[in-house]
Amino acid sequence: MSSEPETDYEIAKSVEEQPIWEVTEPFGLDKDDLELYGDYKAKISQDAIDELLEGDTEDGDVILVTGMTPTPMGEGKTVTTVGLGQALNQIGEDAMIAIREPSLGPVFGIKGGAAGGGWSQVLPMEDINLHFTGDIHALTAAHNLISAMLDAHISKGNELNIDSRSVAWPRAVDHNDRALRQTIVGAGDSAGVTRMDEHVLTAASELMAILCLAEDIEDLKERISRIIVAYDEDGEPVTAGDIEAAGATAILLRDALRPNIVQTIEGTPALVHGGPFANIAHGTNSLLADYVGKKMGDYLVTEAGFGSALGGEKFMDVVSQLGDIEPSAIVLVASVRALKYHGLDMWPFEGEEVLQEEDVDAVEAGFENLDKHVSNLRQFGLPVTISINRFPSDTDAEIEAVREHYQDMDGVQVAESTVFGEGGEGGVELAEKVTDAVENYDGGFEPLYDLDASLKEKIETVATQIYGADGVNYVGSAEDDIAQLEEMGMDDVPVVLSKTFHSLSDDPAKKGAPEGWTLDVRELYPSAGAGFVVALTGDVMTMPGLPARPAAADMDIDADGTISGLF
Amino acid sequence: MSSEPETDYEIAKSVEEQPIWEVTEPFGLDKDDLELYGDYKAKISQDAIDELLEGDTEDGDVILVTGMTPTPMGEGKTVTTVGLGQALNQIGEDAMIAIREPSLGPVFGIKGGAAGGGWSQVLPMEDINLHFTGDIHALTAAHNLISAMLDAHISKGNELNIDSRSVAWPRAVDHNDRALRQTIVGAGDSAGVTRMDEHVLTAASELMAILCLAEDIEDLKERISRIIVAYDEDGEPVTAGDIEAAGATAILLRDALRPNIVQTIEGTPALVHGGPFANIAHGTNSLLADYVGKKMGDYLVTEAGFGSALGGEKFMDVVSQLGDIEPSAIVLVASVRALKYHGLDMWPFEGEEVLQEEDVDAVEAGFENLDKHVSNLRQFGLPVTISINRFPSDTDAEIEAVREHYQDMDGVQVAESTVFGEGGEGGVELAEKVTDAVENYDGGFEPLYDLDASLKEKIETVATQIYGADGVNYVGSAEDDIAQLEEMGMDDVPVVLSKTFHSLSDDPAKKGAPEGWTLDVRELYPSAGAGFVVALTGDVMTMPGLPARPAAADMDIDADGTISGLF
Repeated sequence: MSSEPETDYEIAKSVEEQPIWEVTEPFGLDKDDLELYGDYKAKISQDAIDELLEGDTEDGDVILVTGMTPTPMGEGKTVTTVGLGQALNQIGEDAMIAIREPSLGPVFGIKGGAAGGGWSQVLPMEDINLHFTGDIHALTAAHNLISAMLDAHISKGNELNIDSRSVAWPRAVDHNDRALRQTIVGAGDSAGVTRMDEHVLTAASELMAILCLAEDIEDLKERISRIIVAYDEDGEPVTAGDIEAAGATAILLRDALRPNIVQTIEGTPALVHGGPFANIAHGTNSLLADYVGKKMGDYLVTEAGFGSALGGEKFMDVVSQLGDIEPSAIVLVASVRALKYHGLDMWPFEGEEVLQEEDVDAVEAGFENLDKHVSNLRQFGLPVTISINRFPSDTDAEIEAVREHYQDMDGVQVAESTVFGEGGEGGVELAEKVTDAVENYDGGFEPLYDLDASLKEKIETVATQIYGADGVNYVGSAEDDIAQLEEMGMDDVPVVLSKTFHSLSDDPAKKGAPEGWTLDVRELYPSAGAGFVVALTGDVMTMPGLPARPAAADMDIDADGTISGLF
Repeated sequence: MSSEPETDYEIAKSVEEQPIWEVTEPFGLDKDDLELYGDYKAKISQDAIDELLEGDTEDGDVILVTGMTPTPMGEGKTVTTVGLGQALNQIGEDAMIAIREPSLGPVFGIKGGAAGGGWSQVLPMEDINLHFTGDIHALTAAHNLISAMLDAHISKGNELNIDSRSVAWPRAVDHNDRALRQTIVGAGDSAGVTRMDEHVLTAASELMAILCLAEDIEDLKERISRIIVAYDEDGEPVTAGDIEAAGATAILLRDALRPNIVQTIEGTPALVHGGPFANIAHGTNSLLADYVGKKMGDYLVTEAGFGSALGGEKFMDVVSQLGDIEPSAIVLVASVRALKYHGLDMWPFEGEEVLQEEDVDAVEAGFENLDKHVSNLRQFGLPVTISINRFPSDTDAEIEAVREHYQDMDGVQVAESTVFGEGGEGGVELAEKVTDAVENYDGGFEPLYDLDASLKEKIETVATQIYGADGVNYVGSAEDDIAQLEEMGMDDVPVVLSKTFHSLSDDPAKKGAPEGWTLDVRELYPSAGAGFVVALTGDVMTMPGLPARPAAADMDIDADGTISGLF
């Protein structure tokens, strides 16, 4: 294994993949259990899923990878997830990983791929970052089928008396396309009903959240039929079921519901399935992938989007209460870079270079943020292993400062990770500490709130106990929305809080662990199909734009199909 | 084989498919030459494509299936294509078929599937009609990436001085969605530039035409870079290459470019690849599929969209001059139903039932239309075999009338086809007559016009020699458009005429072979990437709408994934 400086794509291309059935065989799935998409990608067959979930194999332990409040560069959650899975297999454990599917939007915008990086990637990375097995395309098509049926209903008699100003179902596209944020449809002489509309990224569609929570096809269809797509002239909800779209939509998602399986660079089996947003949805891969993964492996390493206060909290309060899953240990990804970013109170972000100089004081000043994440996570009753994702510019003194700070903290360990540059070998310390934590774990996991608490109680629990707010202000339509949700019976469900990921608070400029502030909640709406309520605290970006010179402009493909500029 | 009345879906489900590599092996492709999408769908690997096209295997003969002016129900071109392929194999020939990929729009609208029907279908029909191998989704994504990059360019500095009122690149969606016909994008505070926009069905995207004409990845990329996406403030064209979108767009189409291979109900290998419109594009499956197919089989049966005056003419004047392909024989699909429809001058269409009563006089009156198609096709120097797609209500007297009418016509034969109900067995007469025609064919094929004729000459040739018009009027912007196209050097290319398919004339109400009329050409525009000019003669429907109760409303899927209502 080399740690030469190479691009992710070059590293990925330098590795000889095994046929995927050879990767899954030691984990109990042979070739007949797979629906192949070429030799290196597969969906798990429905029969194999049923057999795994209905069989009496014991569940493996779930290790949840989450992170501190990141810099805009991200601190390497996916890399750590992939690397930890590889490291666990290196130390003799049977470990699976489960991560989200990338969206095309960021790939062509600025972010590049989302399949890990360096020597901790999932393969074939270019396929996974492009069309993969078509799940996201199926979601886009399914989403827009509902839109087309809804507008056809409105323009062809409107029997359900839908108020065209109260349509709650946007259109979806899997690109960063600013011009589609707000649109007017049915314009000109199109014969449609003219109305305001918007587009969201497919990852932000409620269908994505549904796909990631559905247990089987029937559940999927029932959830789809509950989606509120509009309100009628009396203000009553109109659902996808009411416009008779549930069956056809479920047909389009039939294949997408089955988890995809691929391999990491070291041949660890990787479930890559679903990718909901972590602000207006729950931000983690599909429950079905998790269910399958914990049956196949003794360990399932999975990740939650954004920092621990967003995706991490949602995994434990939302996903664990909607599905049959709970973590046995937390890996909290931190970096010297992010610690300095908080310690230096750097906002706006001044770029990576500024953070490459040794500055132990800044690292120590940044503990404020990491400490808060640690104590947040400890409230759930779980052991926390901080994984310092070590970058080449980090110094030993900086790393040592982190180790020292946490050495005597109860239920907390620190491990250094160099999985980006070294693959699983760079995650052995982390793997050993995490397995140790799992072995000593007493099973005391508890979500922070009960589902039968009021919506306000649930919001206030997260705001005060996780974000560190003094309390919550309900502004805009929030009070009315809560009253309506209670009337609809949508109050005994988890609440997904949508908040900036740049800070623990609702102000992206505030680094560390801000105190003395109050969270403004300005709007709530039901994701009735997914089974949660979304509470918005600020502007939500569900449709990013491309920069003046998008990443796509530098991409190319040569005559033999070799891609360049993609990553 | 049963001819019990069953739905297409039930028939399809009653057949045990062979693994696709067993289907292709006798035709020279083994498992290693295929990229499998499950056991029954595959793309042909690039290596196998290269080997076939660069090898010295002789080309098989191409049989082009086209039709008379159809009723709104369609007269069974795809069924005939599939059935003829099966029949040829039954009589001991090695025959392949090549057809277009269906679009989701009609599937969920009214038309149902497009994978043949009855005992002459391609399998797995529900996959082919839904996501298949993802080609159409890839095209939608690629199309909309260009849109996103174009609008980002305009709103982020607009260095190329694009006139936002002169954008020539719509957005694309693969649904019948009336509300998207005309839209306003960049509305509200979206931070985009507000402008009028429209959506086309993905099948109507120029990218679809390009995919179906490109010879390899380099050609694909070059064609994409030539697409005219807008005009600048000086009226000069701005291309996809100018906005640096060609590489990334080609990346998204890399896999879609390779032909898909599946099997018919009787195990005949079927290439199903690409599906451009037959009015604003050339209306036939990909050239690459044809190239591969004529290397693999002694016969390649392929079809062209709409009637022979539209898709048929385009295959011979456009496709044969842009690619390396020419037919050796024509199968002209006719039906007693369609003959009566013309004979009775039925407009608006009064439904199928009216046409089920025996009416030999009406059949004979309808020969006017079929005669014109026959003489049109004979102009290209090809033998014509009329295939009467026999329906259960057709009487022997009606069929006999057709046989008699054409029995002494030079270069013309008549065969009865019952491939819908009987599979290949029902196409044996047709297969024998067509092979006979091919064997006696003297190779005299000629397109109707030379590419170096002027645009007007080309248009007038088709209008007078095919449609039967007395001449052409240039109205609206047509004269200016022609001048501009000549200035751009886009005049030595084929012309794709867009005209109603309900009549040989430009008036859908006129049945038979209308005379004494003049064709109005009202607008011309370049499809510079595809390499042709489109001439519009009337309103073109590139974005259909859903009916008040779309087919989708009756679709369902049960717990074990079985689909109902799809077909």
